[in-house]
Amino acid sequence: MASVRIREAEEGDCGNILRLIRELAEYEKLSDQVKISEEALRADGFGENPFFHCLVAELLPAPGEPQGQGIGSKIIKKVAEVALDKGCSQFRLAVLDWNKRAMDLYKDLGARDLTEAEGWHSFRFEGEAMRELAGK
Amino acid sequence: MASVRIREAEEGDCGNILRLIRELAEYEKLSDQVKISEEALRADGFGENPFFHCLVAELLPAPGEPQGQGIGSKIIKKVAEVALDKGCSQFRLAVLDWNKRAMDLYKDLGARDLTEAEGWHSFRFEGEAMRELAGK
Repeated sequence: MASVRIREAEEGDCGNILRLIRELAEYEKLSDQVKISEEALRADGFGENPFFHCLVAELLPAPGEPQGQGIGSKIIKKVAEVALDKGCSQFRLAVLDWNKRAMDLYKDLGARDLTEAEGWHSFRFEGEAMRELAGK
Repeated sequence: MASVRIREAEEGDCGNILRLIRELAEYEKLSDQVKISEEALRADGFGENPFFHCLVAELLPAPGEPQGQGIGSKIIKKVAEVALDKGCSQFRLAVLDWNKRAMDLYKDLGARDLTEAEGWHSFRFEGEAMRELAGK
């Protein structure tokens, strides 16, 4: 079977992380929402008070075998481990309602769909709205 | 008009913050989901690498005047200001679909309902599911 290593991201991964963000956004038909640059990713994730933490999966496929199977589950398991170690009592994921494959995976792994079960909606303020609110 | 002062929360506010969390949960009919203690709030918010930041509104009502008007907008404006100062490009709020008053306020202030507009669902892993994932 293909060998997968999951590790903490390093600053030098930011180019590949941005490529993956763009590929995901393309799949989600939301490419116009990706405005971040590699430089901003480096600054946000690897400065003194990082805005995000990131795990990366390194895949070494065995010849002739299908690639990529089980990486999602492996990363989610690692996130659970890191979250528990840091004292978190929960973690959340956002998923598009037509992405049934992802939704089924998260449910299989024990997640609850809060939007479906309790009616939670996610609201976003950005750009012009934020500047107007802040009077800037 | 009533005078409102919005300021950063201090560790000594945690008792009142927990009270407000409980009152909100009661309004949301989700009281069973409030498991945090005042001690945990103090540790999570006021340690070396805080898990959350918090603003509080102090209200000094004028006699005979209605209380509480406009505090939500004032806090959201302050959040926008702090977020821009910290270099954030957006911020998000979670709201229950039956809480039309809150939804209308957020929309009036310029927020976009991502669940309605793009189909985003929020998934939560917690407790037993997390421990099982982490093999703990």
